[in-house]
Amino acid sequence: MARKIRMGMVGGGRGAFIGGVHRMAAAIDGEIELVCGAFSSNPEKSKLSGEDLYLPADRVYGSYAEMIEKEKALPEGERMDFISIVTPNHVHFGPAKMALENGFHVVCDKPLCFDMEEAHALAKIVKDTGLIFALTHNYTGYPMVKQAKAMVANGDLGEIRKVVVEYPQGWLSTFLESTDQKQAAWRTDPKRSGIAGAMGDIGTHAENLAEYITGLKIEKMCADISTIVKGRLLDDDGNVLLRFENGARGVLHASQISAGEENNLNIRVYGEKAGIHWFQMEPNSLIVRYLDKPMTILRTGVGELYPAAQSSTRLPGGHPEGYLEAFASIYRNFAHCVRAFQEGKEPEPVYQDFPTVEDGVRGMNFIYKVIESGKTDEKWTTV
Amino acid sequence: MARKIRMGMVGGGRGAFIGGVHRMAAAIDGEIELVCGAFSSNPEKSKLSGEDLYLPADRVYGSYAEMIEKEKALPEGERMDFISIVTPNHVHFGPAKMALENGFHVVCDKPLCFDMEEAHALAKIVKDTGLIFALTHNYTGYPMVKQAKAMVANGDLGEIRKVVVEYPQGWLSTFLESTDQKQAAWRTDPKRSGIAGAMGDIGTHAENLAEYITGLKIEKMCADISTIVKGRLLDDDGNVLLRFENGARGVLHASQISAGEENNLNIRVYGEKAGIHWFQMEPNSLIVRYLDKPMTILRTGVGELYPAAQSSTRLPGGHPEGYLEAFASIYRNFAHCVRAFQEGKEPEPVYQDFPTVEDGVRGMNFIYKVIESGKTDEKWTTV
Amino acid sequence: MARKIRMGMVGGGRGAFIGGVHRMAAAIDGEIELVCGAFSSNPEKSKLSGEDLYLPADRVYGSYAEMIEKEKALPEGERMDFISIVTPNHVHFGPAKMALENGFHVVCDKPLCFDMEEAHALAKIVKDTGLIFALTHNYTGYPMVKQAKAMVANGDLGEIRKVVVEYPQGWLSTFLESTDQKQAAWRTDPKRSGIAGAMGDIGTHAENLAEYITGLKIEKMCADISTIVKGRLLDDDGNVLLRFENGARGVLHASQISAGEENNLNIRVYGEKAGIHWFQMEPNSLIVRYLDKPMTILRTGVGELYPAAQSSTRLPGGHPEGYLEAFASIYRNFAHCVRAFQEGKEPEPVYQDFPTVEDGVRGMNFIYKVIESGKTDEKWTTV
Amino acid sequence: MARKIRMGMVGGGRGAFIGGVHRMAAAIDGEIELVCGAFSSNPEKSKLSGEDLYLPADRVYGSYAEMIEKEKALPEGERMDFISIVTPNHVHFGPAKMALENGFHVVCDKPLCFDMEEAHALAKIVKDTGLIFALTHNYTGYPMVKQAKAMVANGDLGEIRKVVVEYPQGWLSTFLESTDQKQAAWRTDPKRSGIAGAMGDIGTHAENLAEYITGLKIEKMCADISTIVKGRLLDDDGNVLLRFENGARGVLHASQISAGEENNLNIRVYGEKAGIHWFQMEPNSLIVRYLDKPMTILRTGVGELYPAAQSSTRLPGGHPEGYLEAFASIYRNFAHCVRAFQEGKEPEPVYQDFPTVEDGVRGMNFIYKVIESGKTDEKWTTV
Repeated sequence: MARKIRMGMVGGGRGAFIGGVHRMAAAIDGEIELVCGAFSSNPEKSKLSGEDLYLPADRVYGSYAEMIEKEKALPEGERMDFISIVTPNHVHFGPAKMALENGFHVVCDKPLCFDMEEAHALAKIVKDTGLIFALTHNYTGYPMVKQAKAMVANGDLGEIRKVVVEYPQGWLSTFLESTDQKQAAWRTDPKRSGIAGAMGDIGTHAENLAEYITGLKIEKMCADISTIVKGRLLDDDGNVLLRFENGARGVLHASQISAGEENNLNIRVYGEKAGIHWFQMEPNSLIVRYLDKPMTILRTGVGELYPAAQSSTRLPGGHPEGYLEAFASIYRNFAHCVRAFQEGKEPEPVYQDFPTVEDGVRGMNFIYKVIESGKTDEKWTTV
Repeated sequence: MARKIRMGMVGGGRGAFIGGVHRMAAAIDGEIELVCGAFSSNPEKSKLSGEDLYLPADRVYGSYAEMIEKEKALPEGERMDFISIVTPNHVHFGPAKMALENGFHVVCDKPLCFDMEEAHALAKIVKDTGLIFALTHNYTGYPMVKQAKAMVANGDLGEIRKVVVEYPQGWLSTFLESTDQKQAAWRTDPKRSGIAGAMGDIGTHAENLAEYITGLKIEKMCADISTIVKGRLLDDDGNVLLRFENGARGVLHASQISAGEENNLNIRVYGEKAGIHWFQMEPNSLIVRYLDKPMTILRTGVGELYPAAQSSTRLPGGHPEGYLEAFASIYRNFAHCVRAFQEGKEPEPVYQDFPTVEDGVRGMNFIYKVIESGKTDEKWTTV
Repeated sequence: MARKIRMGMVGGGRGAFIGGVHRMAAAIDGEIELVCGAFSSNPEKSKLSGEDLYLPADRVYGSYAEMIEKEKALPEGERMDFISIVTPNHVHFGPAKMALENGFHVVCDKPLCFDMEEAHALAKIVKDTGLIFALTHNYTGYPMVKQAKAMVANGDLGEIRKVVVEYPQGWLSTFLESTDQKQAAWRTDPKRSGIAGAMGDIGTHAENLAEYITGLKIEKMCADISTIVKGRLLDDDGNVLLRFENGARGVLHASQISAGEENNLNIRVYGEKAGIHWFQMEPNSLIVRYLDKPMTILRTGVGELYPAAQSSTRLPGGHPEGYLEAFASIYRNFAHCVRAFQEGKEPEPVYQDFPTVEDGVRGMNFIYKVIESGKTDEKWTTV
Repeated sequence: MARKIRMGMVGGGRGAFIGGVHRMAAAIDGEIELVCGAFSSNPEKSKLSGEDLYLPADRVYGSYAEMIEKEKALPEGERMDFISIVTPNHVHFGPAKMALENGFHVVCDKPLCFDMEEAHALAKIVKDTGLIFALTHNYTGYPMVKQAKAMVANGDLGEIRKVVVEYPQGWLSTFLESTDQKQAAWRTDPKRSGIAGAMGDIGTHAENLAEYITGLKIEKMCADISTIVKGRLLDDDGNVLLRFENGARGVLHASQISAGEENNLNIRVYGEKAGIHWFQMEPNSLIVRYLDKPMTILRTGVGELYPAAQSSTRLPGGHPEGYLEAFASIYRNFAHCVRAFQEGKEPEPVYQDFPTVEDGVRGMNFIYKVIESGKTDEKWTTV
């Protein structure tokens, strides 16, 4: 009999933010069950977190290494199928590598790793093992983002000429890392976050979204990267000119000091024939503006949309789907691919749609290049 | 060790809409697991639906009666704790009554029942058994709706003077029930839906929302109830003048023939000092307009909000929560109350916040009175 | 040589609101010049107001009667062509009658008169004199309102089924007339305003807009008319069910106690095939929702619009036109008709588009019937 | 007796766009009258245009030189007080110089001149003559723009950290200048427009708006300037990184090939304490987002606003003021200054608020520097 795909979690214990998001996202579609976890490097905290989640005590581990070892020892019908890594950036590579090398598939939060070396190494391991690896660039999971991508791919906009992608936030407008705010602390710490702050945390989402929708690679960039808040160790604001491989121009800006902004990721893509605009904060609308006819607003679940948009829609029009549902689409597609893997089948194309380790390598490369560009007097840095 | 609360589902087999919504909503917060179901009155269809949901074959039943009997016979540590009823209106009372009389708590989709007689009978059974009963007037689960209710209760608006609540949809603009569209078929069929169409399906949501937020009962109403589409057997449009118990005036209109409208439930409440406006289709904003200062927009997860709003918020500001999350809050609160019941404790006040059988009786009474008002030449019908 | 059309103003002296609006509206298109005025019943105040407006002292009068007499005595090439009446309601009939009877065309602010008797008498005078009379239901001057009317007339929506028209304001939420606020004082005074407050001041705009756009007459209504603020002498809130001549259902509500609302006139019209939504506060957009294709937003000055919309558009798309421009379109169309009258020609059809004395009579009748409906226990009052 | 200020117009004949805008804007507030014009370099066309405007034939001239000479010869009580220059860029300097040197004040459309040399020369003439010169950077005339400026000046946002200013249009997405579209033709022609296309036409508005609101000068910029449409002779897209004198970061982008965009000028300014957002296409709202309290939306005419905002507001809240009213505020303020000049008085401070020749020089310098930056491989170009 078919069964749910089994997830073991690394990180996400009490007080964490993104771990809970991953658990909710994984649960929504009923394809995945959480069966075990190493929720904290503190075994006692891991144990308490496991209790919160109604897990049996013997499936709650004190470390990811312990989890991978012990789960591997369980019978096939019982052990986890994959691990979900929801730790800070410096603890992505270790569990991912070990999981893959022990036959477990992996879902990993973004950015891929701590540095480029890890990124390349991980990509190699994924390739060598042939296992399934998903990176949670969750914003690509929204139906209207998938619609946008399909519209570009189908030529509905004509040749792409210009892209404007923004990711303003305001939550780091003050020196928040001097308090005990856990989210601020690790994101602004070069030892845990890597070489970038805002550009690594959210700039990379913006880059990923632009490339996902347009299907175009960024070729060159010119960045102004700043640390606005005194005392901060990493960048909290970045403004970047882009050139895409087809010659399209672009602007990317991301900020954590844009006072009062919540989580305002948005993108505009202009082609020869039409332009589209999508806002993460009202994600069920996709504005389409034409050269020669009235603007239209495409809506999740309304009218004829491309298959990729439809397949990630759960509700009729006017029943808003949000952040968790978009995140869930990545887990659901991943789960279908894992199931197909287990059954020795090719997954349906519609499910082969989630960010991969290759996207993760591109994202890491973006982070390195944008920081490099921010430091040089050369106008253009080639990606 | 604590465990998840166990759900058995009645209805919601292949091709259903609201059953899937209930399952996703119940899953999100990790407090509930689906353990069994009688997904269809067709046993073969029920079996296939159970397989889709990865349930063991012996927990998938051919009827709700069989489910309740067999689950009751299971050991306490294994059997379901409650049933979730997601069938058309004429199959609410039967399973609810039998479940309660056999010691199972109940979640039931709205409206409560097929007719007033059933409604009163069911309320009595709930009272007599002392078990927990939740009605899924899901729109009350949105954080900003809870914020609105708390603002009114705290006097932030002053005495309430006027309420405008709307629920326009357009999906029944054509004679859709002549096709094989399952949702249209039963909702427009008096044998399955009861005496009302639009007023029962969505008018009752509007009534519930207005009373929930204002804390005021509707005292009198004057309704213009119509069937616009030829051949239709039940109302598809209704416009109603309201008088609330405190003298406040109101307008309620609900429609399924408002061409092009998706699911545009919205409400405005005006008091002596301020007015609020909430739209279901952009649910994370609550517009507050004042007599003498700039309008503000309260946002889910942003700044200081009342505890009821905070407790039903899962994500930071700018990460949109949608329909499923609001629905989930009803399940989550219900689950906490079931757990407290099992532990012989009083649930925390914040969890005692979901629509009850009494709200369901009020809703049924609204349906009867509004249909009565639509037929009479008397201006005012007392509720 | 062609010359501008000459306006004399009645009312609109220092401290008035709507007089200035009329002057700005008349000036915008360069077709009209203000040549004289009786700006106040107080001759000294009239004189000072004339100085503010750079008028020669001998063209500033102490009363409308004096103005009409003395202007009539001026040579044809010099005297005013029409009067613009911007006084409170009880001073509409007098100057209108005298002007018409002395050969001057008339622009009059709404509502038409103080009572029905005056209204009928005035309509007869207009008919008898054959002169041109415009009533400033200014909201019909917006390009997107004209577009909406043309869409309905051309069947773009199919048969009309439902209309929702709203006019919420909040400025009379307190007992403002107890202060020296001039606008509040006369509008709430039955001796100057007539039998209605909110329904006369703004309800009549809503009625006019609904009939203008749909081309349908209201046949029956059922009203709940209230005075919410203690001490107030006239209604400040009204909620009305409507039946149109073709059987369409409707809701009209207007209020001056909707706390925090600015001037939120808006209308939705739903037909068999599509629905439209227009908001006065963002007047350059017309939302069109379809049964079976994506919603579109028509915009002033963008793409192909109906001729009536184009003819009242002054600027390219994205250059917002506002309240004064819509108001100006009435003056401009009126001026073209006056010029054609003077030249003994038939005005171009596109200019024969402004509210007439007949609309004014309908508006007065609406006021009477809605107040009557508010007082009766009969459900439906026939218009 | 006081009289209106008298305007003579240069350009703006039949078929022109901006001339009509200037005339409407000058007319709205009743402070200015059009008394003469040289509407075209074609005397016959000028004559016909004058007739359209109801001007006497002897005040319609065949050239600006003729107009200035003949008007100067008229008695003081009759001749024009100022000229309004609404010609393409290459015909700004000539009439401005001659008017000033003959004692006439000047209103001039932007950008100031054809090239830097003219700009500096003109600034010197203005200084030497002591006459009044206004440049119609009309977007600074909006009440909410003035509110934004006042908020920054009063420290309501704290120290400014980041500015994002955008001006996307789509009307030149095709090679429109190959048709007989007059607006496209001169704007894309280096002989009439100067060295820049989009950056001169609209980029300079964006630059002016950013400096006007923030009170900060741009110190350095890094530009990517492109000509996207094949065959076009000037730039149609530009993306620019900015550094302001206080260290604030910025992004400016302007485009005429952003398909489907109307006239979407908008600006965000983020400070230490709050951020503001203003959109030209919905100009009566100013969004203010705070670090620690709910976002508010300030509205034209609603509540307490700074004096500069109030003084340029003509209507109560909810009565939308648009593009023409904002444009009119520049003319009105200019007219008051001319009147004060004539009376030998100091104008009230609230009227000394319009763009000057100095702003025009800055704008020309911006155009030159941004084009220079677009051509160099140096990252930063100092302004």
